[in-house]
Parts: sequence; C-alpha cells; structure tokens
Amino acid sequence: MQCRSAEELQLLVNEAKKSSNKGKVADYIPALQKANKDTLSISLFYPNGSCFSAGDIKENLTLQSISKVITLAIALNDRGEEYVFNRVGQEPTGDPFNSIAKLETNKPSKPLNPMINAGALAVTHMIEGSSVDERFKRILKLIQKLSGNESISYNKEVADSEFKTADLNRSLCYFLKEHGVIDEDVEQLIDLYTRQCAIELNCLDLSRIGCVLAMDGKDPYTEEQLIPSSVARICKTFMVTCGMYNASGEFAIEVGIPAKSGVSGGILGAVPGRFGIGIYGPALDEKGNSIAGMKLLKLMSEKYSLSMF
Amino acid sequence: MQCRSAEELQLLVNEAKKSSNKGKVADYIPALQKANKDTLSISLFYPNGSCFSAGDIKENLTLQSISKVITLAIALNDRGEEYVFNRVGQEPTGDPFNSIAKLETNKPSKPLNPMINAGALAVTHMIEGSSVDERFKRILKLIQKLSGNESISYNKEVADSEFKTADLNRSLCYFLKEHGVIDEDVEQLIDLYTRQCAIELNCLDLSRIGCVLAMDGKDPYTEEQLIPSSVARICKTFMVTCGMYNASGEFAIEVGIPAKSGVSGGILGAVPGRFGIGIYGPALDEKGNSIAGMKLLKLMSEKYSLSMF
Amino acid sequence: MQCRSAEELQLLVNEAKKSSNKGKVADYIPALQKANKDTLSISLFYPNGSCFSAGDIKENLTLQSISKVITLAIALNDRGEEYVFNRVGQEPTGDPFNSIAKLETNKPSKPLNPMINAGALAVTHMIEGSSVDERFKRILKLIQKLSGNESISYNKEVADSEFKTADLNRSLCYFLKEHGVIDEDVEQLIDLYTRQCAIELNCLDLSRIGCVLAMDGKDPYTEEQLIPSSVARICKTFMVTCGMYNASGEFAIEVGIPAKSGVSGGILGAVPGRFGIGIYGPALDEKGNSIAGMKLLKLMSEKYSLSMF
Amino acid sequence: MQCRSAEELQLLVNEAKKSSNKGKVADYIPALQKANKDTLSISLFYPNGSCFSAGDIKENLTLQSISKVITLAIALNDRGEEYVFNRVGQEPTGDPFNSIAKLETNKPSKPLNPMINAGALAVTHMIEGSSVDERFKRILKLIQKLSGNESISYNKEVADSEFKTADLNRSLCYFLKEHGVIDEDVEQLIDLYTRQCAIELNCLDLSRIGCVLAMDGKDPYTEEQLIPSSVARICKTFMVTCGMYNASGEFAIEVGIPAKSGVSGGILGAVPGRFGIGIYGPALDEKGNSIAGMKLLKLMSEKYSLSMF
Repeated sequence: MQCRSAEELQLLVNEAKKSSNKGKVADYIPALQKANKDTLSISLFYPNGSCFSAGDIKENLTLQSISKVITLAIALNDRGEEYVFNRVGQEPTGDPFNSIAKLETNKPSKPLNPMINAGALAVTHMIEGSSVDERFKRILKLIQKLSGNESISYNKEVADSEFKTADLNRSLCYFLKEHGVIDEDVEQLIDLYTRQCAIELNCLDLSRIGCVLAMDGKDPYTEEQLIPSSVARICKTFMVTCGMYNASGEFAIEVGIPAKSGVSGGILGAVPGRFGIGIYGPALDEKGNSIAGMKLLKLMSEKYSLSMF
Repeated sequence: MQCRSAEELQLLVNEAKKSSNKGKVADYIPALQKANKDTLSISLFYPNGSCFSAGDIKENLTLQSISKVITLAIALNDRGEEYVFNRVGQEPTGDPFNSIAKLETNKPSKPLNPMINAGALAVTHMIEGSSVDERFKRILKLIQKLSGNESISYNKEVADSEFKTADLNRSLCYFLKEHGVIDEDVEQLIDLYTRQCAIELNCLDLSRIGCVLAMDGKDPYTEEQLIPSSVARICKTFMVTCGMYNASGEFAIEVGIPAKSGVSGGILGAVPGRFGIGIYGPALDEKGNSIAGMKLLKLMSEKYSLSMF
Repeated sequence: MQCRSAEELQLLVNEAKKSSNKGKVADYIPALQKANKDTLSISLFYPNGSCFSAGDIKENLTLQSISKVITLAIALNDRGEEYVFNRVGQEPTGDPFNSIAKLETNKPSKPLNPMINAGALAVTHMIEGSSVDERFKRILKLIQKLSGNESISYNKEVADSEFKTADLNRSLCYFLKEHGVIDEDVEQLIDLYTRQCAIELNCLDLSRIGCVLAMDGKDPYTEEQLIPSSVARICKTFMVTCGMYNASGEFAIEVGIPAKSGVSGGILGAVPGRFGIGIYGPALDEKGNSIAGMKLLKLMSEKYSLSMF
Repeated sequence: MQCRSAEELQLLVNEAKKSSNKGKVADYIPALQKANKDTLSISLFYPNGSCFSAGDIKENLTLQSISKVITLAIALNDRGEEYVFNRVGQEPTGDPFNSIAKLETNKPSKPLNPMINAGALAVTHMIEGSSVDERFKRILKLIQKLSGNESISYNKEVADSEFKTADLNRSLCYFLKEHGVIDEDVEQLIDLYTRQCAIELNCLDLSRIGCVLAMDGKDPYTEEQLIPSSVARICKTFMVTCGMYNASGEFAIEVGIPAKSGVSGGILGAVPGRFGIGIYGPALDEKGNSIAGMKLLKLMSEKYSLSMF
C-alpha cells in the first residue's frame, strides 16, 4: 500500500529531529548500535485507509518492548483477566523497566505490571503452545494480521545477539521461578522472549497496528475483530499508565495518548477513535525512549489536540 | 440546588454497598473513626445543571487527599508548569502514598508526583500568600467557586486532630527541607496542609467540582474559566495515573476515568465532556480507597461505558 | 580419635535443648527436612589434642553456609586480598543472606560481603582449577586437612536436591554476571557451589577445623600452617561481623566469638588461642541459625567468659 | 598530666599524614569547616598512667558521633539491655549512617543499631533526667570522669550550628515518633543531641576514655568501675561491628580493634587490656572517617599486632 508524504508533518519532523543529537543509540544490544542516530520517520494510519508520512517509513526496526503490548493481548485472550492479573500486577512503578528490587520487597513476589521486563517475561510465559516455535508463530501471526503485512518476520541476528546478552532477564526469570510466577525452562522462555523483541517491521506497519488499537481491536477494512475490544482497552490503558518506561507520567501530561516505546527507537501510538501512529527514531533519551519521537509527539499533540485528558 | 433521586443509580448503590463490610473506616485520624461504615452516597452533576443522586448526598465529609488536586491547580497557576515540575515529578509510583524511601534513593531527592504525600506537601508549600490564613483562604475560595457553594469551610476538630498526629508528614517535610525542596517553617506548612485536608463539603459539592474538571475548567453555568484548561488537563491526567493511591493502575483498567480518593471515603470523579461525580463511602480497602465507592464506579463504568480507554 | 564425654557440658546442652521446640528444621531443601529437630550435640577441640563432647558428635551434617569460610580462605590464597575485595565487599549488611536488592542499588554492583549468598557465589567463582571436579577437590582437600579426616566427602543426594531448587542463587549469579562480577557458566558455578554446601562431616570434624582457626591457621599437632595466618585472621573477622546471618550483631554481643552457621543446623566456632567448637542442632530460628546451638553458645560464653570483647 | 612525645609514633604519623590531601573536611556543619585539613595527632594512654603522643594532642575537637558510645553506656545503665534492645537493634547495616529507608522497610520500624543516627537519637531519648540540662549534665559528667578532665564542656557555637542544620535528624526523629520509638518533643531531643555531639575535648582526653574501655570500664588509677564491665563490653562490640560507619567491616579486617569515629575527624580507640587511643585528623574519606587517622591505625595495627582477630 501507498502512504502519502505530508508536508506539514515533514515540518514537525524537521523541528523534532533537532533533538536527536542530545540522544544516543542503544548500545547494550550490539545489533542495535548500527542504527543511524539522525533517522526520524513517522506514519499516520486512518481507519478509512488513508495514510500520511514523513521520512523513510519503509526502514526496518525491531519491536523490542513494543512487543509487550501484543503478548499481553494474547495472554489475556488465552488465559483471561483474572489469571493474568493474579500473576502480574496492574500498577505503574517509579522504578526502571529492568529493576528487580520490587520483586524482593513486594510480598508475595509479583511483577508490578506487564510493561516492565519482569512482567513482560511472566506474560510471555503465559502464551500457550506446544513449543517455542508454535508460541512464537502465534505472536508473529497476530502482528501480521494487525498490520495487514504477512511478510513480517524476525531478525535472527538481533535475536541471537540479545539472547547472548540477556543475563539480567535471566536473573529476573530465575527470581520469578523461585517464587512460582513462572515454571518453564528459563532458556526456553528467554529464547521466545528475545525472538518476540526481534520481530522486524517498519513505521507503516506500526501505524496500522496502532489504528486497530485506536478502533478497539477491529480491523477498519475487514471489520474483523482482531482483538476483543475489552482486551484492546486494557492494552491501551497500560500504554497510558506504563507505556513509556518511567517517563510515562510525563508523557501522559505532555502528549496524552496510549503509546509504547522500544529501545530500538520505535513508538507505537493509538489516538482513540481517530488514527494509529508509527514512529522510528533510534536516538534515545536517558530513560530509553526515542528522543526525537517524543518531541515529535509533543508537537503533534499540541498542534492537533491529541490528548485524551 | 436540588438533585433528583435516581432509581437506577440506587440499585447500583445497593449492589455496591454489599462490599462495605469488607472494608474499614480510617482509624489513624481520630476524628474520622466516627464515620458510619455502611454509608454510600453518590451525586452526578451534568453541565446542563441536571443532577442525579442516590443516598444522603448532603452528609458532610472532609476532602483529605482529594484536596491535592485543588492545590496542584493553584500551584500550577501561581508558579507555572516548569517551576512546579522541577520540584515535584510526574511519575506514578508503586509505593504507598506516605512512603519516604524513594526520597532517599532518587538523586536528586524529589517527590515522584503531586498525589503522594511528599509531593502534595511540596505543592502546598508553593501556594502563594503572605500568611497561612491567606494561603488557606485561596484554597477555600477556589473550592467554593468550583462547587458553587460559598458556605464551604473546614472542620477545625478534624484539622486539629490531624495536626497532632502528623508526625509522618513532619518527617517527610524535614526530609524535603534538608534537600531544599521546601524552605518554609514545617509547623506552618503542616498547619496549612491539615486545614486543606479538613475542608468539609458533601457529595453534591464534589460532583459539581468534578463537572467543572470534566468541562476543562469552565463553569458550565457562568461559562467562567475557573481553572485554565491546560491546568485542568494536567490535573485530570494525574487523577488517572496516580489518583487512587497504588491502586491507580487497576482503577484505570476497571473504571477508566480521572478520579481522586481521600481516606475520609470520598471520591471526586470527572467523566470528560460528560459529567462530574461525587461519592462518599467511608469504609476503606487496604490501599485507602472507599471500597464500596470503587465497586460502584466499576458497576457504573460497565453499565454506562465511562472508560476513556 | 576419641573425645571424652563431659558432664558439665551435658548439663548446658540439656538446658539449651529446651529451646529446640521453638525452632524448625529447614524445609526449603528437601533433603534437610529429615533431620531430627531435638538433636543437639557439641564438640570442643583443644590445641593439645584433648576433646570434650556432649550428645552424639558422630552424627553427620552438611556444611551449607559454613563452607563459605573455607572457600574464602582458598580464594584469598589463590587471588590475594586486593583481587578478592575488589569484587566482593567487606561490610556487614542488615539484609537477609539471600537478598538481591543491594546488588541493584549499590553502584557499582558488588556483593556486600563473602558471607551472604551473592558474595559467597562470587568467591566460589574465584577458586582456581581446570574443572568443577578439580576445583571441588581443592575445597574438599582443605577441609580434610583442617579436620584431619581424610574420609570426608559430600552428600550427593543433598547436592542434587539443592541444585534443583537453586533458582534464587541462579538469579543472583545472572545478576552478578550481567555486572561482570562473575563470568563463568552459571550452571557450572551452581554445581560447584551446591557440592561445597553438601560436604558432610560431624561435630568433631567441625571442632577440629575451629581449633585450627583459633590457632591462626596452624595445625596444633603437625605445626603445619594449613592456612596463612593473615588469611585465618580475615576469616575470623568475617565470622564475627557477618557469620550468623543478620543476627551477627546480636551474637557478637551475647557470645562474642568468631562463628559461622549453616541452615543444616551446624555451627563452626573458634575461641582465639583457646579451642575450636563444633555444634549440630537442626532446629533453626527465624534467621536461619540453630536455635539451641545459639542458646548453648550463650550459656557457655557466660560460664567460661569466651567473649573477645 | 604530661604525655611523652614518641619518635616512632611520629614517623608513623608522618607517613599517614600523606593521605590527608585525598580527604576533605566536613562541610555540612559550618563550624567544622574551619578545621585544618593537614592536622594529625595521636595520644596513646596506658593503664599504668604512661602516655605517648605525636602531633599537637591539646588541640580541641568535638565528639560528634563518638558521643554515641557514651550515651549508649548511659542508656544501658539507666534502662537495662532488654529495654534498650527492644527499641534499637544490634545489627550492622550496609546503609549510610544517616539513612531513613530501613526504618520504613523493617517491620516493626526500629533503628538497626545505636551507631547510626536513627539509633543514636533513640538512645539519647532514653537518657533519664528531668530536663535537657540535667540529661546533658549526666552525659558531660560521665565524659569528665572517663577522661579525668573536669574542665571538659561543649562548644555552643558548634551545637547551635548543628541545631540549625539538623533537618535530616528531625526527619528521622519524627519518623521514629510516628512509630512510637520515641515520644518526647523533637526539638528538645535535637537540642540534647546536638549538644552531646558538640562536647569538646582533645586527643589526650579521648585516649584516656579509650583506656577505661580497654580496661572493661574500670579507671586504672582509682580502680573505680566507671562503667559496668558488661556495658563496656557491649560498647566495644558495637565499636567493632558498627563503629566506623559503613567502613566498619573493612576496618575490622585491616585494623581489628574497637573504635568509633566522628565527622569532626576524631577517633576513639580501645585495644582490649592494653591501652586507649585518641586521634584527631579532620580530613575525611567519602564514608566520613578521618582518612589519615584510618591510615595511621592500619600502620599501627600491622606494626604492633593490635588486631583482636
């Protein structure tokens, strides 16, 4: 499909891009280090199928933490709200996304929410399937359907790179296993988790996923309910309260839309009832969010009154 | 003014009330202990001036933590966003509302948000005025205008009782003073803070305040902008991300509206663009929220699709 | 060798034994659950080779955390003080022995001392050798020499049982690996660590090890310096400041000798210049120390003025 | 009395002094900032009345945290072990001396030991007397007797300066008051506490106090038991496990004697059965201990085998 380049959007991108040099590309995952720090692209996808863009929206990025929204949707579908929230909390946290301290101090041990690593690992653990391959295919399949792009796959090099350096996630997993939150083989779970993080797509794909969320889980073309509306609502709520790591509160005030970022520099956004957003800008701020992407969303929120609040 | 008793609302109240016996009335503030555990009343106030109620909506309650929303509005007005958020953060926290630990571990020391006690004390400190009396009158005045009720005052017995038992808040204040977040006399600040918490009104008043917030700060009658719309938006955002103590995330998922609770059992709610809510139910759950009030809002959110998400 | 039963000692044992029923046998390691809660035995070993005992001092127990003293001695010998203490701290902690929180909050991440699990794992990691078998043999060999008992080996059933349930230690290891404190394969390190914890001996053996420590590392018979005196001194210092988990401070006040306990119910003690102590009493208090063993040492310290302070 | 200058000691002082330039004088108490960074003096006092010194041992310093040992002795005497240790713990901590976090996380709230500020404030609270003046005189009187110097008083300028800047200690006090650990007026307690910290003496005085502790509380001249021996023993134990802030563990290994430091740069030491030590060196390391004083004690411990371990 074709997305029209929009001049007004390009002006905002040019403005936002200036902040890129204050950020830096993620360096703890070797495969991400190669990204071009100056990149900033955006795609807006509307329910009627129209689409506006600025920058090279066909450039690939990996989902990273953005995948946490998708796996949450699957787990809620597979297991139901009660099962999921008995094992993973619903509360935002002031701690960093990879923190372990609260797992020790909270009794019983329970990840605070599904958007921090501990919670996301527990959620991925809940995805049903007879093998890692099968479970991974279910994740990939949903992403293909949400984006209407069957060619989406994962970047094996990135997955392998993250698998090798995932010791902090292993530490979180064994802590969760000690406390009975997960009970599968840790290496297997890390394998599945690093693959989901390495799913590769582009801004256009992201904006189409955002559009489905904005429309409460219904594909605007086919009118197929790809995600139950109650599940879509829960996903969007977490995107507001915990979607931007521990800058979520500030983001809610300054932008005010459901959004989820990843350390690759991607941002998935959903303006309820209006349109979906896909952004790629690999220079990160110190909290791990795309620095130019955040700036761009602030400019857009002011100009187009996007805030839900 | 008159509020019509609504049969449908009364049925939901009857259902919600059943959970009261699982809660308990706040006992750490002596004056609050006298409350009747079985009370549950609600008022809904609409921009067109119509009003629906169930239960005795003229029964008085004190604002307690609900007052944090009002003082935030004044501080933002007095000092501007930049000043306020340089001193108090915008991030939700998984810690209890009266916790001090994060003030020590976060460098520089800064309360995480204006809805926890440390942040609210820092915000009250920012309210301008030449004396405690003058500053307090400014708070009271705004509440009188928002509710259209000039007879609202504060309960001196409750304020005195809280002043005497405010040692934890004093501890927070001195910690903040050590780190330069506040610089006034602590006893003076505690005096002002306990008075603001002891402001006494009823459900109807609360629902009118909620209605003004729902209408972005504009009085629906007089069309006077009582709070700048940008300030009203920030207040509502904090009500979503941190309004219900460390049950805010769960509340966002299960109810999905801006709301703020107090340990007196009051809840102030705002359904954006639609109506304001005032609830009084003094039996609290273990996180400090009105247990029957929470249940009532869940029932209403499902029945009337109130969620913003 | 023969150890004379001592009537006076037996009276103290009888008195101390009464507290056993307030304790409970460790249940998180399946193989330890079988222990008899009422057991209490003690052996005192003197440099001149005389020995006094009460209870069945030939009953076997596994070393568990007592082994941390031995591996520390080897690591200090293998690597030197500077190397060891650059990677593991020297400070006591008020946190439980298996806590992970301080690894996250302390920058750079470094276990506080070699007597908590995180520190002990880092120390075992430092023991040189070309394979787990070889490294384990070096630990075993030293224990055989210190106790003069070449028949000492390890209990494979206990080691296997602990290996299977060591998820919390795995979590600690991966956290340490993430921060570069260890760099070997975690399963391999856990294998070595659980074997060292499962080394099996009796009270008499323990008391002979204690005697060598009391004599600054020199075997009182052969006059062979089994551990350099500077290393023996460091080991005894840690036994005073951190030997009894987070009851070490209380133990220093009430007993006042270098001692190290294990969750099997064993205690290794060294009265500097005087004699070694071996105790076995599997009923534990809530901090993980032998409840009757602690009581016995208090009675002895008062009666025989054992305190160093 | 006269103290002989000792050439050998002077050589060690010269060596230790070199580290002074890596430290810095305490700056958070204005009155301490005036100290001369290069100062290093030491006095050794023996039970037979002989005395050796290096540097200007008549220069005055304030006790600061060293006073915690004296007030603990009085509280143990006034209230008994059980009363004191029901309110203040006996465990060393890895946290800084002025930390508040553990008061919140430990249930029930209880300072970990009497050498951190929270514990010392609770101990001073226990000192009996009908007024601050009377209680302070009891502290001063004991110090005069221990040092045999009736002219010792306190530095009002330092006390006033600390009283004004004691907001962190006020925060600790109110937290303790909230939890019932203390119940007196906070300003009154801070008044007493800042006076005890400002008691002014010199190295010679300190070394005589150390000598009495080394002799289990008995004045070597008059043979009067100034402190019960059981109390002296407890004080020395805390000096080993928690005397040098969160460098106590390292100090136990490298020096190995009971000692207590203060942010004025003073160190009180007691070599059991042998002699007392008084040191003054105001340049501090990052943990708050006299940097040259620590170095000097290390050199002495090696040369004269002072370690108890």
